[in-house]
Amino acid sequence: MPIDPMTEPPYPFQDLLGFRLVEWKADYCLFELPLEEKHQNRFGIPHGGVYATMLDTVMGFSGSYTGDLSRKRLSMTLSMNTNFLSRPTTDRLICEGFRTGGGARSFFARGLIRDSAGHAVAEGTGVFRYRSAG
Amino acid sequence: MPIDPMTEPPYPFQDLLGFRLVEWKADYCLFELPLEEKHQNRFGIPHGGVYATMLDTVMGFSGSYTGDLSRKRLSMTLSMNTNFLSRPTTDRLICEGFRTGGGARSFFARGLIRDSAGHAVAEGTGVFRYRSAG
Amino acid sequence: MPIDPMTEPPYPFQDLLGFRLVEWKADYCLFELPLEEKHQNRFGIPHGGVYATMLDTVMGFSGSYTGDLSRKRLSMTLSMNTNFLSRPTTDRLICEGFRTGGGARSFFARGLIRDSAGHAVAEGTGVFRYRSAG
Amino acid sequence: MPIDPMTEPPYPFQDLLGFRLVEWKADYCLFELPLEEKHQNRFGIPHGGVYATMLDTVMGFSGSYTGDLSRKRLSMTLSMNTNFLSRPTTDRLICEGFRTGGGARSFFARGLIRDSAGHAVAEGTGVFRYRSAG
Repeated sequence: MPIDPMTEPPYPFQDLLGFRLVEWKADYCLFELPLEEKHQNRFGIPHGGVYATMLDTVMGFSGSYTGDLSRKRLSMTLSMNTNFLSRPTTDRLICEGFRTGGGARSFFARGLIRDSAGHAVAEGTGVFRYRSAG
Repeated sequence: MPIDPMTEPPYPFQDLLGFRLVEWKADYCLFELPLEEKHQNRFGIPHGGVYATMLDTVMGFSGSYTGDLSRKRLSMTLSMNTNFLSRPTTDRLICEGFRTGGGARSFFARGLIRDSAGHAVAEGTGVFRYRSAG
Repeated sequence: MPIDPMTEPPYPFQDLLGFRLVEWKADYCLFELPLEEKHQNRFGIPHGGVYATMLDTVMGFSGSYTGDLSRKRLSMTLSMNTNFLSRPTTDRLICEGFRTGGGARSFFARGLIRDSAGHAVAEGTGVFRYRSAG
Repeated sequence: MPIDPMTEPPYPFQDLLGFRLVEWKADYCLFELPLEEKHQNRFGIPHGGVYATMLDTVMGFSGSYTGDLSRKRLSMTLSMNTNFLSRPTTDRLICEGFRTGGGARSFFARGLIRDSAGHAVAEGTGVFRYRSAG
């Protein structure tokens, strides 16, 4: 019986930052991150690396869905871009990834982070390469 | 008496990831990060967000040096790019930031991450805006 | 009487490449480019610089609309990113720019290029700074 | 007898903009571009697309040198980033590309544009994929 993707245990860096997968389907995924003090930079706002981490994560997942947990599709990020639009107005981030193109060897994706009030906080694009399953 | 920049206590996200400032001067800084299991993604290698975090950090610092700790110069990232060149061959990252241009309102920077064997792992560029001291 | 933005004569680089403004309103613009042999690289396909030029153009315009030609709003690109999704299947490019954030001093934008069959060809993001009117 | 790479006739978009190859070796190339009125945007300065075109060109060439013109190495840009540092102070651009990483399937590069007085004007990074020779 296929394992529910939502119940895959968090990997170490996911556990460290505290984000969790909420929705995953072909060409799309959604993660949430509750903001905590541990995410703050020296100005008391979330470190830019937190947004970059979330964008990298959601973009990578958006192109890696197979619908069958026994067939994992692995990808590696080649390049990504992050734009920092504004500060969040709430303490929960909604992070969506959208596969926007590509083929059998590589794919492109776009990511968008909003706070839970719907306010856009960061966006980015990236290019990823599929890896052969290990 | 000016406080030694090297002894500024780590901010929360810095403490969470474990990087530390090693050198800081005009237009340049160097941070180190000991890689640990907590930095790993679901493939057992450092999450791309770890590299993006380090690039954002070193680029931001490279343009914010004042030489006088009583005059803090604050900056915010507008946009940054991360290229993932290869996997590290050692468990210690050397992360350098170089201010490459700009003026009184904004600056540009480049960042380079190598492992402690000198192997290039990631590089990036970014644009930052100075903020008025709070 | 305000001059129709659509009839503003092309500037030199616009004239060289041959693109034209089709629609312009708050936070949005649309340009078209008929592809010709002059746009080709050494492989006989459009040079990447053609797409980057169009993305820079549409993103810059998307944040510069004032609705009143006597009040020109000038902006300069700080940084932009271009992703090359696929080759066009027709010889006419539809290039859209969307302002996605920012304030009085700078803005963020996203650009999308499709061929006239609706196929996504390139996309990008950028950050721009407003300039005082000269 | 190998053809001198410097004497390869310009391709259409190269001819349109007027840049020329000056030096090409493993992991490096240098192009020059004389700035003319045709490169200007609506503010009378070079269009951002001119810089992006030059960065794309030099980065692509930096990873495509074979040393033997009978073995052409073809590459396509997956993603690139352009940072606009300042305006040129002279009317000739010196554009250098440096391959910074990669392997048999893809490569990374960095590009730098200076004016002929040595002033940095734009810089960028990119990721490219090798194509099978046609």
